[in-house]
Amino acid sequence: MTAATGGRSGRRPGSADTRGSILEAARTAFAASGYDATTIRAIATAAGVDPALVHHYFGTKEAVFVAALEFPFDPGTMVPTLLAGPREDLGERLVRLLLAIWADPAGREPVTALLRSAMTHEAAATMLREFLTRALVGRLAPMLDLADAELRAAVAGSHLVGLALVRYVVRVEPLASATDDEVVALVAPTIQRYLLG
Amino acid sequence: MTAATGGRSGRRPGSADTRGSILEAARTAFAASGYDATTIRAIATAAGVDPALVHHYFGTKEAVFVAALEFPFDPGTMVPTLLAGPREDLGERLVRLLLAIWADPAGREPVTALLRSAMTHEAAATMLREFLTRALVGRLAPMLDLADAELRAAVAGSHLVGLALVRYVVRVEPLASATDDEVVALVAPTIQRYLLG
Repeated sequence: MTAATGGRSGRRPGSADTRGSILEAARTAFAASGYDATTIRAIATAAGVDPALVHHYFGTKEAVFVAALEFPFDPGTMVPTLLAGPREDLGERLVRLLLAIWADPAGREPVTALLRSAMTHEAAATMLREFLTRALVGRLAPMLDLADAELRAAVAGSHLVGLALVRYVVRVEPLASATDDEVVALVAPTIQRYLLG
Repeated sequence: MTAATGGRSGRRPGSADTRGSILEAARTAFAASGYDATTIRAIATAAGVDPALVHHYFGTKEAVFVAALEFPFDPGTMVPTLLAGPREDLGERLVRLLLAIWADPAGREPVTALLRSAMTHEAAATMLREFLTRALVGRLAPMLDLADAELRAAVAGSHLVGLALVRYVVRVEPLASATDDEVVALVAPTIQRYLLG
């Protein structure tokens, strides 16, 4: 999201591992406890470093959060890939992508962290709003042909957010234990209808 | 939910007003800040009473939360009413009910409080899970004819939860500013299909 995330490229040898460990610990902590209940001290302990190092790399808790938020997927490349396949399978590809992200802890944790924090922290709510707006209204809607494409993309997104929340976070049965194929069979036609009419 | 909520009937004259003021302040506080960030002291201040009175009436913060959670609607009466009308309008009636609940602060605040708290507090997540399970799987699904009615009711519920979240809490445009009729036109056919096939 910012130049500060370039550490992964190895341009700052020796520090990339520590920085990466802190970010990994931060993602786990924000996902488990939400923004307010997570402390720099707790992140440092989980990462096995001194809290002063966390301050050194990031400055504030909010800066750690912004860096940790860096999703394992980028709407800028994800949406064109989704739209490159046959249009008649778009709904299914989108639902399967969501389920695949949730099946991988590296995908699930940053998204859970953002959902949790957005509920109680205005800065996180703004980030979630900006992420959804950028992904759905900014990227997806312009590729669709319908006059109300932006509203439709937002409604489709709201369904996917609710699905993730109720299936994975609140864990309402039998949705929590349903197979991916069962979920796709029900939800993919809905997303298809929202996005393609 | 429990006999303790009987105060509204006036059986305890003189105390019902104070108890009601505390619950109203608690609903507003939990909705604004979530469970963890809300203190008994803040609730007492907002209600204009001494914190000792809150302890006297409810004992613990969790007990205040449970009492404050008392929704302005009860699935036990709501679901039969919804199902009493023509089946071909069930999806629209359900979506309009959700929108009407959100249009009224007395409906919006306890639901927002529960959503916010469920994200970061395990007891609240359990309450939301139990509420959704009771309303959707326990009450709604048995009235439907489909073999996978419970999964369908849970998926429909996940869509409505996500809709409320993205429209009212995260406020993603253009969904946040769309009219009720625009939302109903898109979402009602989906809920109808989930519940009635």
